[in-house]
Amino acid sequence: MDAQSAIGIASIVTAGITMAIGSIAPAIGEGNAVSQALRSIAQQPDEANTISRTLFVGLAMIESTAIYCFVVTMILLFANPFWSWVISP
Amino acid sequence: MDAQSAIGIASIVTAGITMAIGSIAPAIGEGNAVSQALRSIAQQPDEANTISRTLFVGLAMIESTAIYCFVVTMILLFANPFWSWVISP
Amino acid sequence: MDAQSAIGIASIVTAGITMAIGSIAPAIGEGNAVSQALRSIAQQPDEANTISRTLFVGLAMIESTAIYCFVVTMILLFANPFWSWVISP
Amino acid sequence: MDAQSAIGIASIVTAGITMAIGSIAPAIGEGNAVSQALRSIAQQPDEANTISRTLFVGLAMIESTAIYCFVVTMILLFANPFWSWVISP
Amino acid sequence: MDAQSAIGIASIVTAGITMAIGSIAPAIGEGNAVSQALRSIAQQPDEANTISRTLFVGLAMIESTAIYCFVVTMILLFANPFWSWVISP
Repeated sequence: MDAQSAIGIASIVTAGITMAIGSIAPAIGEGNAVSQALRSIAQQPDEANTISRTLFVGLAMIESTAIYCFVVTMILLFANPFWSWVISP
Repeated sequence: MDAQSAIGIASIVTAGITMAIGSIAPAIGEGNAVSQALRSIAQQPDEANTISRTLFVGLAMIESTAIYCFVVTMILLFANPFWSWVISP
Repeated sequence: MDAQSAIGIASIVTAGITMAIGSIAPAIGEGNAVSQALRSIAQQPDEANTISRTLFVGLAMIESTAIYCFVVTMILLFANPFWSWVISP
Repeated sequence: MDAQSAIGIASIVTAGITMAIGSIAPAIGEGNAVSQALRSIAQQPDEANTISRTLFVGLAMIESTAIYCFVVTMILLFANPFWSWVISP
Repeated sequence: MDAQSAIGIASIVTAGITMAIGSIAPAIGEGNAVSQALRSIAQQPDEANTISRTLFVGLAMIESTAIYCFVVTMILLFANPFWSWVISP
């Protein structure tokens, strides 16, 4: 196996694994947060606005960890410095 | 496999795994914190401001651990001193 | 594989793994602490200041363990004495 | 692989793993202690001073185990007697 | 690999693992003890002095197990009799 193949395979596999593992926890964390938001709105309907606003800020923070994984995956696929070097003449 | 390939593959795989594993705990920790914040707002709506403020400071602290992993990942991809050395003539 | 490659790969992989594993427990511990702080503020709003202050000192202590891992990671990447020795002529 | 490489790799990997594993328990232990402190302040606000003082002494004791790991890591990286011997002429 | 390398690597790895694993239980145990002490002070504030004193004696005993690991680690690194023998001419 030459260097291009090895670097390519490593990038492909790592991109997939990163996004796959990186999506587990944000999904669970957001699920818990949304679940609790609905319960809280049901319990205190007058505060639905405050609860929604706090929920959305919190979801954005949780989502950011998934976005980090997505960015790393995109970099590995489209802006991979190791690949650029290995295919440069 | 020559030195460039080996260092490159190690950097790629480590970058992905670091970000993937590093996003698990912050997402779950933030999910718990947000979830409890919503429950607390529903229970004590008059304190919604204090609760939100404390929540956001706490989320920032938790998020910092994910950011550390992201920084390490970016360094491995774009400012890797070992890679710089190995491709320098 | 020569000595430089071996030391470099070990440093890269260890840096990533250290930061990834080292971010798990602080994130979960801080999530628990923040979660309980919000519950306590909802239960005893008059003590919100004392609770916040105690929470922030506690978060700083917990965060310190993540910072230790980050420092070790940075040392491995940028001030690695073994790497310095191996690339010195 | 010669002796220098082997000793160096062992030191690098052990330094990272020591700090990573060594940060798990202190972070969780401190999270539990802070969490309980906030619950106690909410329950008995008049004792907030005593509770805070006891908490901080306890946190210092728990933090000490993380500091031991950090010291061992620093010794492995910068004052490693085996490395000193192996690179001495 | 010659005898010096093998003994050195075994010492390094064992020193790190000993300190890392040896810090898990004391940190969690102290966290539980501090946590319960704070709960007890909140429940019975008049006994705060007695509770604190008992807590500190208990923490010292728990901490001693971490100190044993630290001492063993230091001996492995700096006063290792096997290493002394293997490098003696």
